[in-house]
Formats: sequence, C-alpha cells, structure tokens
Amino acid sequence: IGYDILNNIVQYHYGGAVYPINPRAQEILGHKAYPDLSSVPSDIDLAVIAVPAPAVKGVLEQCGKKGVDSAIIITAGFKEKGPRGAGLEEELLMQARELGVRVVGPNCLGIIDTGSALNASFAAGMPLAGHIGFFSQSGAMCVAILDWALGENVGFSTFVSLGNKMDISETEIMLSMGENENTRVILGYLESIDDGPRFMKAAREVSKTKPVIIIKSGTTGAGAKAASSHTGALAGSEHAYRAAFKQSGIIHAESMQALFAYAMAFASQPLPKGPSLVIITNSGGPGILAADACERSSLHLTPTRKETADRLRDFLPPTASVYNPIDIIGDATHERYEKTLDVILKDAFTHAVLILLTPTAAVEAEDVAQGIVRLAKDADKPIMTAFMGEKRVRGARKIFQDHAIPTYDYPEDAVAALNAMLLYRQWLEKPERKYRSFEADTDKVRKVFASVINQHRHDLVESEARQVLSAYGFKVPESRISRTTQEAAVAASEIGYPVVMKIASPDVLHKSDMGGVKAGIENETMVKEAFFEITSAIQLRQPRARILGVMVQEMVLQGKEVILGITRDIQFGPMIMFGLGGIYVEVLKDIAFRIAPLSVEEADAVIRDIRSFPLLRGVRGEAPADIEGIRDALLRLSQMAIDFPEIIEADINPLLVRPEGQG
Amino acid sequence: IGYDILNNIVQYHYGGAVYPINPRAQEILGHKAYPDLSSVPSDIDLAVIAVPAPAVKGVLEQCGKKGVDSAIIITAGFKEKGPRGAGLEEELLMQARELGVRVVGPNCLGIIDTGSALNASFAAGMPLAGHIGFFSQSGAMCVAILDWALGENVGFSTFVSLGNKMDISETEIMLSMGENENTRVILGYLESIDDGPRFMKAAREVSKTKPVIIIKSGTTGAGAKAASSHTGALAGSEHAYRAAFKQSGIIHAESMQALFAYAMAFASQPLPKGPSLVIITNSGGPGILAADACERSSLHLTPTRKETADRLRDFLPPTASVYNPIDIIGDATHERYEKTLDVILKDAFTHAVLILLTPTAAVEAEDVAQGIVRLAKDADKPIMTAFMGEKRVRGARKIFQDHAIPTYDYPEDAVAALNAMLLYRQWLEKPERKYRSFEADTDKVRKVFASVINQHRHDLVESEARQVLSAYGFKVPESRISRTTQEAAVAASEIGYPVVMKIASPDVLHKSDMGGVKAGIENETMVKEAFFEITSAIQLRQPRARILGVMVQEMVLQGKEVILGITRDIQFGPMIMFGLGGIYVEVLKDIAFRIAPLSVEEADAVIRDIRSFPLLRGVRGEAPADIEGIRDALLRLSQMAIDFPEIIEADINPLLVRPEGQG
Repeated sequence: IGYDILNNIVQYHYGGAVYPINPRAQEILGHKAYPDLSSVPSDIDLAVIAVPAPAVKGVLEQCGKKGVDSAIIITAGFKEKGPRGAGLEEELLMQARELGVRVVGPNCLGIIDTGSALNASFAAGMPLAGHIGFFSQSGAMCVAILDWALGENVGFSTFVSLGNKMDISETEIMLSMGENENTRVILGYLESIDDGPRFMKAAREVSKTKPVIIIKSGTTGAGAKAASSHTGALAGSEHAYRAAFKQSGIIHAESMQALFAYAMAFASQPLPKGPSLVIITNSGGPGILAADACERSSLHLTPTRKETADRLRDFLPPTASVYNPIDIIGDATHERYEKTLDVILKDAFTHAVLILLTPTAAVEAEDVAQGIVRLAKDADKPIMTAFMGEKRVRGARKIFQDHAIPTYDYPEDAVAALNAMLLYRQWLEKPERKYRSFEADTDKVRKVFASVINQHRHDLVESEARQVLSAYGFKVPESRISRTTQEAAVAASEIGYPVVMKIASPDVLHKSDMGGVKAGIENETMVKEAFFEITSAIQLRQPRARILGVMVQEMVLQGKEVILGITRDIQFGPMIMFGLGGIYVEVLKDIAFRIAPLSVEEADAVIRDIRSFPLLRGVRGEAPADIEGIRDALLRLSQMAIDFPEIIEADINPLLVRPEGQG
Repeated sequence: IGYDILNNIVQYHYGGAVYPINPRAQEILGHKAYPDLSSVPSDIDLAVIAVPAPAVKGVLEQCGKKGVDSAIIITAGFKEKGPRGAGLEEELLMQARELGVRVVGPNCLGIIDTGSALNASFAAGMPLAGHIGFFSQSGAMCVAILDWALGENVGFSTFVSLGNKMDISETEIMLSMGENENTRVILGYLESIDDGPRFMKAAREVSKTKPVIIIKSGTTGAGAKAASSHTGALAGSEHAYRAAFKQSGIIHAESMQALFAYAMAFASQPLPKGPSLVIITNSGGPGILAADACERSSLHLTPTRKETADRLRDFLPPTASVYNPIDIIGDATHERYEKTLDVILKDAFTHAVLILLTPTAAVEAEDVAQGIVRLAKDADKPIMTAFMGEKRVRGARKIFQDHAIPTYDYPEDAVAALNAMLLYRQWLEKPERKYRSFEADTDKVRKVFASVINQHRHDLVESEARQVLSAYGFKVPESRISRTTQEAAVAASEIGYPVVMKIASPDVLHKSDMGGVKAGIENETMVKEAFFEITSAIQLRQPRARILGVMVQEMVLQGKEVILGITRDIQFGPMIMFGLGGIYVEVLKDIAFRIAPLSVEEADAVIRDIRSFPLLRGVRGEAPADIEGIRDALLRLSQMAIDFPEIIEADINPLLVRPEGQG
C-alpha cells in the first residue's frame, strides 16, 4: 500500500518534495529513499504512515522528534477490530497528543488535494480539479465517489477519508473545507457524529457561506445495526440527527443519488432567487412529470406573463404551449430551444429554468446542448437539464458535464436538486438565532438532585419533580396525597373544586388504562365515590400494586393537552420533544423534535411541525391555544435541559406531571 | 414520415409482404408502389396511414372497401388541436366503426413488434427482441424509452404508441399484451384512463398472470393542468387512480426511474418467495444504505442462521461480517464473492439476494459480474446488483445488461424494485374477491329521486336523504323539525332524551362552526335554552340565513364518529371515502378511498388504511369500535353508489346525515 500511495503522489505530479522512508531501499520511483525520518535532510510538513499496525507507534514517535505536526495513518487494525484494537488506538491518540501531532485516520484511504496536485491515498485515480470537497467515514464511499467523479468528469477540490476519526473529526474537516478557497460545496458521508453540539456549531458557521450536503447512513434500526457491526460507531437516532441537520443548515441527502444530484447542481449553478421555475420541453409527457415533481416540492411553476407569452408566440408554432411547462413541441430544433431559453432567461419573474428534451427526429440533442451552454454563460439563474433516453442523448450529456451544466437522467432528480438549492437559499436568509433566558432557581434544583443522589435513586418522585419544574417557572397544579376518603375530601375542598383524582402507586404505570384516574370531580360525594372506585379498580386489576393513596389534584381547565419532553441523544445531547397530548402522541405518533438549546424561532417551528398544529390554532370556532405560552414552556424546558445534564428524560403534560431524572 | 416508416419496416427486415401506396411513385425502397389500396393484388392485414389529416377519411374508406380490418393512423391534427380537430376525430371514429376497421391512433408514433420484426413507426431505431411490452399515451415517452432501451440493451416484445386513443384504448392494448406470449412484463405511460371500470376489470385479469407497471402523470394539480393543455385528456384525481391501481394489482411507478428499475427486475428475475433479503457487500457504507432502504420497505434482512454463518466462516477472513448485510470486506476478490453467493443461494430462508460492490483495488468488477452471471443461471431467487461508482464498474454493468441481471447505480433502487416484486407476489396470492350484497328497497329510492327531479332540484333535503339511507338498511336516528320551543320540547320527549338539536336552514353549511348545534340535551329546560341559543347564534352570525326551525334528533350514544362518503371520479366512477369523524377528517385529512364496488376485503382494508385506525380498535382501555359494522356500512354504501349513478356525492356521519344527490 505504501508503494501505491507513493506512486499516486509521483504520477499525479505533486509539486513539493517527497521523501520515501524504507530501510531496505535506496530509491523508490525515482526518489531517494531514507532509512528513517531523522535522516531526511529537511523539514517535513506531512507524514503518510502505512506501516503495519504494531509499528505505527514507533513511526509516530519519530514524527514527534522530527517536528512533523501532521500525519495520515493509513494503517488498519485499530478500533474497527474490536476492544483490543480500540485500546491500541487509545494509546496512539494519547501519544499523538503528547507529541503535538495531528492525525487523520487510522484505517483510512488517505487524502487528495487537487489544488496542490497531492494524491496521498491508495485510491485508483485522481479526480479533475474542481470545487467540491468530500469527506467520508467510509473508505469504500471514497472509492465509489471517486470512480463516479472520474466517469462523469466531476471536479473535486479535496477528498478526505476520515477512517476511525481517532483525532481529526468530521467537524474539523468541515471547518477546514469551509476555509479552503477552492471548495465551494462540501459533501460528506457519515455513519456517526462524535460531538454533536460542536458539529452543529461548526455546521451553522460553515453553512452560512457554503452549502454542506450530507448523507447519513444507519438511520433505520436495521441500518444502525449494520453500521455498528461495521465501524463500532454508535449511530444517532433518526429524530436527533434530522433535527440537528435542520437546525444547522445542513442539506440532507436521503440517498446516494440525491447526494450526486445535489452536488452537481450546487457546484455549478447560482442559487435560485425565489421559487418560480419555468420548464421548457419538446414533449408533453416529461413536462407533466416535471410539473408533478415541482408541485410536490417547495418550487412552483411561474405563470407565464402576457409580455413573455407574446414574445414566445412571435416565433413558436401555434400548437406550442406558451404556458408553463412551455411545450415547444416535437418538431423543435435547437434554434427554437435557444430562442425560447433566451426569452425565459430575460424574464425577471423566473428564478430557475429546467430544460427537457426527448430525442425526436427533428432535434439534434448535441446542438441543443451547445446552445444551452452558450446562453448559460451569462445567465444569473440556475439552469438544469434532463434529456430523456440514453443512446441519442449521451453526447449532449457529455457536453453538459464538460461545461458544468447539471444534467439528470430524469426530470424528477433535477427538480429535487433545485428544491434543495431553494431551501438552502431560504436558510441563508434566515435572521440571526435569538435566544431567550428565563430566571430559574437553579440552587433549588441542585438541592433536589443532590438529595436524590444521596438516596441512590435515579428517578424523582412526583413532589420532587414539581419542585424542579416550578423552579423553572412552570405552574404546577396543586396536588396532595390522601390515604382515606376523609383526607381526600379535605384536600379537595382546600385545593378547590373541580379536582382530578389519581392512584398514587409506584407500580401502576398506565394509570388511566387501569381505571386509576377520575377527572371532573365536583363535590364531596363524588370525591368519596372516586376514592373507592379508583382503589378498588387497582386492587382488582393489579392486586400486587403498592397503593400509597390517592392523589387529589387541581383540575386545569383548558381545552388542549400538550406534551413537552426532554430526551437525551448520545450524539447530540438533550432534545426537546413536542406534541399534542393524549392520542395524538400515543396513537398517531404526531411529535416533533429539536436539539437544545432552542432558539425562539426553533421553538415556534417545532410547534408548527406537528400535523395536528391546526388544532392548536383552533378549529370549528374554538379559541386558539396559547401558542406563545407553549413556546415559552419549550424554551424554559430547553434551558433546564442545558443547565442540568443530569436530566436524561422528562415528560410534561399539563394534566400529568411525570418527570424522570437521573442523579 | 411515410417514407421513414417504410424505411423502418424494410431496414429491420419485416418478414411479410409490404405494399407502399403512393400515386406518384413506381417503386419505393425496392418495393413496388401502388396508386391506391384497391390496386394491391392481395389481401392486407394492416394499413399504416400517414397521409395529411384531410386525406385520412378517404384512405380509411379504401381500407373498408379492401376489407382491411386494422389500421394505424399516424397523422396528427385531430383532438389534440382543439374543438375542430375533435369534431374531425369524432367523424373518423364513426366511419371506422361503420367500416369495421379497428384503429390505433391518430396522432401516434406507430407500433413495433420485435417478434415479427415489424417496425411500423417513425421512431429512430429498433429495440432488441425481449419480453417487455410497452404502451404509451405520449409519443415522446415512446421515443425516450426506446432510446433508453437501445442504450441499455433492454429487450422489448412490443411498443405501442396510443396517440389520441380514438378507437383502441389502453385497456385493449393491455389485454392484448396479456395474451401475447412474448410479453412477460407490461409497462405503460398514461395521462388519462378512458373507461375506469373496464380498465380495472382488465387490469385485474391481466395482473393475475403478468405484472403491469404503470406510470401515471398529471397526478398533482400543476401536472394535471399541464396534461390537459397538452392532450385534452382529463387527468384523474390522485386519490382515484391510486385506489384503482391498488385494487386491480397494478404496480405503480412513481417516477421514470422507478419505471425503468422495476421493468429490469420483473423482466428478468423470478419473484421472491418471501420478504427475506440478504445483502452481500465488500464495503460497509453501501451495505448500511441498502439496509436502511430495506427497513423502509416491506422487505427485511434475513438473520443469518448458524449453519449458514458457519459455512461462510469457513472461507471468509475473521474481520468479515457473516451477519446480514454480509460484509466480505475490501480485499474481497471475485472468488470470495462467488463462494459467498453460492452459500447464500443455497440458504432456504433467503428469498432474494442483493450484491453490492465498491471498486476497491483488490477486485475486478468484471470478474465478479461474470461469476454472478454464472451462478444466477440456476438460481431460483431474484438476484439484483448495484455496483458503486462509474468508470471502473461500467464493464461489469454491461455484462449484467447482456445477461439480464438487473443492475442499478444505487442500492436504494435495487431495493425498491425488489420491494415492488414482493408486493406483486402478495397480490398474486390474494384470495378471490368476495362481494356481499344487502337487501335494499331500490323502488323507494327511485321514487325519491324521481320526485326530486320533478322539482328540478339537484340536492336532497334531509328527510329525503333519510329515506334513501334507510332503504339501504342504514339506521337513521329519529329526527323532527320544530318551529317553536314548545314543539321542540314535545319532539324531544317523544324521541326520548338525550337529544341533539341543530339549526334547520339551507343556508347554514357549517352548522357547528356557527353555533348551530347543541348535543347532550337532557331535559325540557335544556331544550328551551338550546332552541334560543341556536336560533340567536345563527341570527347573529348569519343574519340573512333562512331559518326553517330547529331539528331535534335522537342522540346516538357511541364513542366514535366515522364518516363515510361517496364521490364520483370522472374516470373511475363512484369512490367510497372513509375517515374518523370530526377533526380527523377536517384538520388531519386522514381519509382513505376505494373505487366501488368494494369487495369485503377492500372494505376491511380501507378502514385499516387511515392513520387513526388504532383509535377505532380502542386505546387506553376503551372498547373497540364495531369494525364489522363499519365494514357493512361501507359495503351498503358501495352497493348504493353502484345501483344509483345519479348519486354524485354523499356524506354520512353518524351524528350528521347530509347527502347531496343529483337527479
């Protein structure tokens, strides 16, 4: 492998000095070889290490002594090989930190930088120079993408195989690509993310200047299982990384195909200034398919204005359709394509153009492609193409590739890529994140948690949870435990009718299902009845449950139940959950997530994300729910989740307060 | 164009006799030309007509005289040109019917039949002989698909450009392809369907022996608008044709890409016998992506059994993963691929295999492809491939194409195609459709409709609707109109408490929203209050509404409100709608459709189709709803919709009966 790497460095004409290190050779590939690092006569910027795993430590030691501050460890046989390899990798990392050497890898393919013509990898081939930076947690993906780039003439600026990410992570590579002047678009393949919050912070910065497109695998249960058996990386839950991408401006490619489709578009075209798309086609069918795809996206078809329609009618045959999709019909030649495109590019209300072609007898696809390339030079809007078929459009596709016009096999892909560009533009236009902070009695919370820890418990009991919540300004309905009907009646009259009564038992989890909850209790008679019914229902259905009594609670008179919650994702930390209470969460699974801390705008957005949001706004003449109140509650909860990493999980439901904490 | 067609017929060596008709030529392309049909010395099987539009009638006349019973009219300039062209086409159809000539077209590209080497089209090129039949409502799609077939070496049996479908429709072509022995898979591109019920009946028959894969464009609003400006065909509503496809076994391709992907798989591979898929890969990343895609489908990853795992461990390196996805790692050669595939093909618990390859340095993609082709010969399960990259896998893809092994650029497409095959197999295994019929007093309904027609009305009033529904065995809650509080109190006491009261006004459509409904009225005092509140609310909010009184209705005491309805689709006829009442339909749009008549199984399926179905089954200890009762109600409604085509729309809601009919 060392030889392959050196060969790549030499054959692609790296401009700097190269020193092969090999104790058993005088010269390799025309370069004088040295027995070890210390015998190299000059300073070294980067070491590429491809010795067997047990020898890596020694080489790294030499790097430190020689003052080399960057190394790529190609060698495999570390974390990916199980616990023993992981231990070895841990030692290696400590050593690198001590020596002050930054490391890419181990277990990677290497890196490629087309700007300096450096191919320090054992990949087969060197991509054209271009503006796409790519990093990948899988060496295989590097190989596949490189091969695709070579086949389709797509240019790249840098290629980084992250390997086991022992030292340098996706976050650092993303930041460095953000600063690399040759890179305009950043692509990444990830299986895991090491430090979620740091990654999000970096992504927010970088995505404000360059699009970051990421494909994340292991998103489903089966995929994640495959991922962890493969790299030992813990795959993030789907909810968490989707929220994280959304909150940090990352463009999420749902498939390899989307990754390529987006990369082509972002690398070569300006962003659309708005959602209005014009489709030009020489046949109806593909035009309709494109219109369907457009309708399903955030784009829309520009209605052709009279002025533009008149200009088109000047030269189009009468059976052509000047309404979008503009159908210049089957006998269209390249001249007709060019005239039409010219008119549309000048139309100020059009933000993007998609040109479709079916290889009819009348048309030379290559001539059309040449014409589009010519007009695209001065265009200030994105131009995409999808030429249908294969044999008679190959030449045209090649012309587009050579001139950086995105071209797709099917109209749907072109629309998807354009839609991603539009969404990215909307991200760029978002105002600065605004946070809000609330006064909170953190000392009180700290005391509660300390006492829970002292008692070696992991969960809070209800009264403790109430203290924690009220410390963050939540209004917790008043509530008391009663052991007799007498006590219950007293509690109810002191709290004030109506009340809710619930079984108090650590063993009854689904209180309602078991008949352990009665609401709307209006007077003393009803209290006594409810006490009896609740306790006997539980004794009947769960005879072994320990019954501590019956909880009498203030009944919160409001129409909607919402559920807020905290869960903690292993990669991204605390996540805030939101949903409408009851069946909406339990049966319809209608919930939305954001990673904490939430900005004010994100708190608003998570409320609007659920399908049942219209119910909150009020339907059928109902009063709308207090959405600002919900937003503030989400922000308070977010603040609590950040202040107290001890909280692993919590649920808040206006009628049911049931948090769990871990001390 | 006539010359191009003749040229196609001649150059691809059609075996039968060919007679060019042209009054101004002696000989064309080596064939003696005749001035008209009557001068041709022998009988003629098929006439291809490519004369200008005004001359078509005369030629068709000649066909009739000569006894030619089949013609393809290539000529354009009919329905697609507007009302005048449509009139011309209408005349042509009547003439053809009189003469007994069946016609494909007009405005079409022609037909191709590789079995008889007949290319009676003006398309550029002739596909390889194969087993795919394709019909298309768009000539451009024929051109595009033909060009794709030529580029990818995909074989076809027949190609039919339907054109304006004046006489021969998609249904007849589908039926004829169903009988064609050379055709194993039927593909179609449709913009409209002429006779929905007939199409469904034919599709049900054909799909029991051959897969029918259809892409339907114009499914969204924008697409449908584009479709109707293009062909004048009325595009079906998305709900209707999705239901129709589901109910008749049609495999719905959502995009051009899916159409091609499915076609390749169905044309060459056996159907999977079950859902268990094994993925073989030489790299983790693509394996995880495939596993993700699998998880999102109806397929699942076969857990590797111990026996199979042991066999694999015999030759795989220790770092390989024998668990599905089986990762034979980056240094895998073609021998390792073959050994692995051999073991998996012999595993009885595996129903399908997907082989992924990343072009690592160790592997020759073409050798792997050769090995797979060899093993696939005797395989009884579907084998799909996705080789990542482009340049270094092109050769392998070519080998797969030449040997009819489906190969895809991305693993996701392979999984999607396999999933379509699995769903088709499940369709094949479905039991016969069972219908159920209920006694119904159709005379009574006929009388109601007759009286409505006599009064020149389009809508039924509530009492009429009640009669119609009860004639079909629906239990309609008792109900009376009252004009005074006194009358209301009498009505309520006779009906029996509790009652519901509703405004009776033809002008108040959203009764609840306007405060025009009160439920749970228990006694006379409440009746009087409700009467006053309802009438004053309406007077306040809709001062111009005509108030006929207040309806007093039996209150149906049941937990769930469901909504059933009839709507009529222009292409497919009556559709039955189902949803949970209230906000589920109105806010969450949680509804499902089936085309009538519903089979018993379909009535069950439509109930389970809605997202909120778990609520019907009962949550949190509730009693389950009477699902059999709902099913019977759906079947009764279906029967009513079929019996009375006069019914354009109807809604039934247990608490609100409000049908509209058209006489």
